[in-house]
Amino acid sequence: MELLTTNNVWMMICTALVFFMHTGFAFLEVGLTRQKNTINILFKNIFIITVGLLLYCLVGFNLMYPGDFNGFIGFAGFGLDAEAALDLTYSEGYTYWTDFIFQGMFAATAATIVSGAVAERMKLGAFMIFTVIYVAFIYPIAGSWHWGGGFLSELGFYDFAGSTLVHSVGGWAALVGVSLLGARKGKFDKNGKSLVILGHNIPLATAGVLILWLGWFGFNGGSVLSADPALTSLVLVTTCLAAAAGGVASFILSNIMYKNFDLTMFLNGILGGLVGITAGADQMSPTDAILIGAIAGVLIVLAVAFIDSLKLDDPVGAIAVHLACGIWGTIAVGIFGELAGWEQFTTQVIGVASYAAICVVSSYLIFFTLKKTSGIRVSEKEELEGLDLHEHEMNAYADFRMNEH
Amino acid sequence: MELLTTNNVWMMICTALVFFMHTGFAFLEVGLTRQKNTINILFKNIFIITVGLLLYCLVGFNLMYPGDFNGFIGFAGFGLDAEAALDLTYSEGYTYWTDFIFQGMFAATAATIVSGAVAERMKLGAFMIFTVIYVAFIYPIAGSWHWGGGFLSELGFYDFAGSTLVHSVGGWAALVGVSLLGARKGKFDKNGKSLVILGHNIPLATAGVLILWLGWFGFNGGSVLSADPALTSLVLVTTCLAAAAGGVASFILSNIMYKNFDLTMFLNGILGGLVGITAGADQMSPTDAILIGAIAGVLIVLAVAFIDSLKLDDPVGAIAVHLACGIWGTIAVGIFGELAGWEQFTTQVIGVASYAAICVVSSYLIFFTLKKTSGIRVSEKEELEGLDLHEHEMNAYADFRMNEH
Amino acid sequence: MELLTTNNVWMMICTALVFFMHTGFAFLEVGLTRQKNTINILFKNIFIITVGLLLYCLVGFNLMYPGDFNGFIGFAGFGLDAEAALDLTYSEGYTYWTDFIFQGMFAATAATIVSGAVAERMKLGAFMIFTVIYVAFIYPIAGSWHWGGGFLSELGFYDFAGSTLVHSVGGWAALVGVSLLGARKGKFDKNGKSLVILGHNIPLATAGVLILWLGWFGFNGGSVLSADPALTSLVLVTTCLAAAAGGVASFILSNIMYKNFDLTMFLNGILGGLVGITAGADQMSPTDAILIGAIAGVLIVLAVAFIDSLKLDDPVGAIAVHLACGIWGTIAVGIFGELAGWEQFTTQVIGVASYAAICVVSSYLIFFTLKKTSGIRVSEKEELEGLDLHEHEMNAYADFRMNEH
Repeated sequence: MELLTTNNVWMMICTALVFFMHTGFAFLEVGLTRQKNTINILFKNIFIITVGLLLYCLVGFNLMYPGDFNGFIGFAGFGLDAEAALDLTYSEGYTYWTDFIFQGMFAATAATIVSGAVAERMKLGAFMIFTVIYVAFIYPIAGSWHWGGGFLSELGFYDFAGSTLVHSVGGWAALVGVSLLGARKGKFDKNGKSLVILGHNIPLATAGVLILWLGWFGFNGGSVLSADPALTSLVLVTTCLAAAAGGVASFILSNIMYKNFDLTMFLNGILGGLVGITAGADQMSPTDAILIGAIAGVLIVLAVAFIDSLKLDDPVGAIAVHLACGIWGTIAVGIFGELAGWEQFTTQVIGVASYAAICVVSSYLIFFTLKKTSGIRVSEKEELEGLDLHEHEMNAYADFRMNEH
Repeated sequence: MELLTTNNVWMMICTALVFFMHTGFAFLEVGLTRQKNTINILFKNIFIITVGLLLYCLVGFNLMYPGDFNGFIGFAGFGLDAEAALDLTYSEGYTYWTDFIFQGMFAATAATIVSGAVAERMKLGAFMIFTVIYVAFIYPIAGSWHWGGGFLSELGFYDFAGSTLVHSVGGWAALVGVSLLGARKGKFDKNGKSLVILGHNIPLATAGVLILWLGWFGFNGGSVLSADPALTSLVLVTTCLAAAAGGVASFILSNIMYKNFDLTMFLNGILGGLVGITAGADQMSPTDAILIGAIAGVLIVLAVAFIDSLKLDDPVGAIAVHLACGIWGTIAVGIFGELAGWEQFTTQVIGVASYAAICVVSSYLIFFTLKKTSGIRVSEKEELEGLDLHEHEMNAYADFRMNEH
Repeated sequence: MELLTTNNVWMMICTALVFFMHTGFAFLEVGLTRQKNTINILFKNIFIITVGLLLYCLVGFNLMYPGDFNGFIGFAGFGLDAEAALDLTYSEGYTYWTDFIFQGMFAATAATIVSGAVAERMKLGAFMIFTVIYVAFIYPIAGSWHWGGGFLSELGFYDFAGSTLVHSVGGWAALVGVSLLGARKGKFDKNGKSLVILGHNIPLATAGVLILWLGWFGFNGGSVLSADPALTSLVLVTTCLAAAAGGVASFILSNIMYKNFDLTMFLNGILGGLVGITAGADQMSPTDAILIGAIAGVLIVLAVAFIDSLKLDDPVGAIAVHLACGIWGTIAVGIFGELAGWEQFTTQVIGVASYAAICVVSSYLIFFTLKKTSGIRVSEKEELEGLDLHEHEMNAYADFRMNEH
């Protein structure tokens, strides 16, 4: 009882920290994009967390943890089970309620990742429909394959806190969304040269990354699913060292390649390190963690350039951070993890490919259907004048007045 | 001892989360008002939390928890009792110090609610005097009626975490303050039509709501007064689901009524859901919580319109959020709670009415006296040019420079 | 085992809260300085936390806690000891990993204090070199003198959570840096009169102080090094009361002296109170804490004026807050603490002097060497046009557009 109470306290705190990540995402996305689309981004973030929680309560939780099932898809019924809450033997690490609310906070994250990538030109209604389907059905079904005890966990696939199950799941949909949407006006010139579209509030973007890092204490720390002192504290150490190494590696490489001190790359390097360590945060030594983070940081710089060269326009770098580093982190478990070796490596690749399949196919189906019906892209006029004006009739800084000088 | 330690850890974390709500309030109030009054609002928020804590230490705590008393008013003496801290049998859920500091964080909240409603035209000095009296005397005496074991708890009145004891107590004073102050210049045109006065920083307002939601993990979670795993985790679930449902209901209703995607209404719906669930967060099923939150969300949209139609000018919607939803949440305990029924319903109404009486009378006396002596409203020139310039000789963004484009 | 788990949970949460202080520092420093140097300040903050953690992992932790040593300097070897993590008898209060990561979060703080003081005119490269040396070597060696069991702890010197070991260590380097750098252009007129250079984002600065206060729950609360209920909760009470008293004292004194309601002074008073209580937060009664905080608040107002009169230009008031109040708090242990008296007082003074010696000498050597080689100050043109443009080729608010009105 004492131990359950302590474990449950830790899990509730981690839940709160993961919830706080939505503030981090909002700050990051808003900060790196243009002022005229600020309200739209904030609206999407608020929509995702509220609707996401309700959907996860209604169907997601029971799709993701269906109990005994065929390993591919199962469903334990609508809504939550108020009786289960009274059963304090549900788990030694947390109560039924804590289980739901902790997992519920994760669910919305996948859609948030997409939100940043498709920012500044996607229709609000289309995004909302995508979010509802992706969060209610795709994320939990895909999640059941490993965390719900499905075929990938049978195979020995390992993803501790979601490099693949959360970050790549969002990242693949971001990639598909960005491909179908096309680039923002002005992102590429007539010769296909990539131009820089600057963000409007870098202090908020920076705070967003620091808040995301803070939230990762709960994202990874809570994924221990108890307050086990050895494991939870190891996870915090590997998480923080990977974040630090990712940032520093991105900073150094971008400084060598572009001869500047690029804050945005530094920040994305930190996020890359965090995503990279997530799949194996409970299995790595500090040295492994630094190495995994540093490689993720290098990957960020290269992936951003590569994605750009494909004429894909990802305003906040979500694909590089969540997809590229999510894949890297998952595979790193096969290289550095406790069962590292050819077999584990292959299993990790199979896992990555399985998630690629379900996410690319499902998000393509959703986005493509939307494109052919309601449309997914705002009009050129709306894009030019900003989504805030057209979708919301609001201005994020309506009364902001300049000083004379 | 192990259990006390765990319980006390949870209570200290909840204390920290409730403290963080003051950052949320500051961001929300600043974001929804005009730039020229930003310093003034921040100053009030900082004043409330610092002076509020000192007053609660000096008199409030012992007025609110006077021990054995007549049920209406009692006082256990000035200051804190350093001896009590050594007594680890004080409670199974927390130490004496934690008890004080957790309750102290609540005390300041009531005044903060008023701060937002009277923003942009109230004299700073008058607001500071009001805050001192309200936080030092009215809030704790009113609180003693239920949480201190007074006549309302004898009657069977139930308010888990303060829909009435905190939010309505602030809301009633906000209503009185707004009535006596009058609307801001330009809020209503010559024909009495309500005009929109836009806020200056919606990203901060949005972050403010997310931080308040996060803080509510501690506000409601800590009101269990221990880390009891079943109760605390249920409370987090009901709290989050009500918040989500409140936001979604406000968003849908305002979309139907006004044909737009109004972020501010979405945000206030979330806050309404949070205030609404607060009185019964430990007694509701998830379905109840969603229902209570959704009704609160509907209430927000209607209350904002109704308050507007009364020519009451509440820049941040504090009366709709904290008073209307505070009353709703308290009464909802009589409809959905464990002892729901006509008797409980009546008791809840009596409780609401009792708090209405003490708060309206006392805040009227304070504000009216101030109005007749020092005055409560700034001059027209000061209102036009901004309180920052006149009360503080500062500019919140003095060096903010615009880009050429 | 139960108790270790609970203690370790508390220590991990405190680690997260101390980490969050870096967001607070970033907001505070950015808010109080000019827009044109925003990216530069954010970059330094991100550099400090990432590089700081890596260096602390590589050498700092084992310099600061070298085990059995000569009392002045010792080193337990490079990197972390993965074996120690398996030993759950390492301490009753936390695991080896938690010990490292909690202490690691402290390490970066000292450099952050310097960052604010030298803002707006120091070369980025020089600052990075200073940070690396100071965080990797000076901070941990100085720390070993007391927390590592060195000669000062032998003497009976007491600094609970770092009024001296963290805040003064940063403060002394800030003083040396500011002296060698000189004032910003335009800070003093031809007659040596001090002019006000206004900050560009006071809402962020205010949020920064509130976040720092929140972080201090972990900074002081975690310095108990367990979740001992009596001690941890006392520490939160003394910490919060000192913060409140510091703010109120600064506000009242500055109101008397300058006849205004100065938000910045209020904020710095809070920070002064926090720094002041830090050395003895576990030994003070609430009344002592209020007194210590209030004296710190008074000190802030006087120290800011005094530092100004010396023609030292400290844009964020870091020297007044961290050095002046750090010294005050350390000495206050000799006046109000459990062993208060002439002997303890003298020992505290010896401790303060020892840290003054190592910090002034080492930071002078570093800054002076840098000044004579690479230089420490940007060109006049760069200072005028902003460090963001010249060091980073970025603009913190590049797309921020003004509204027409």
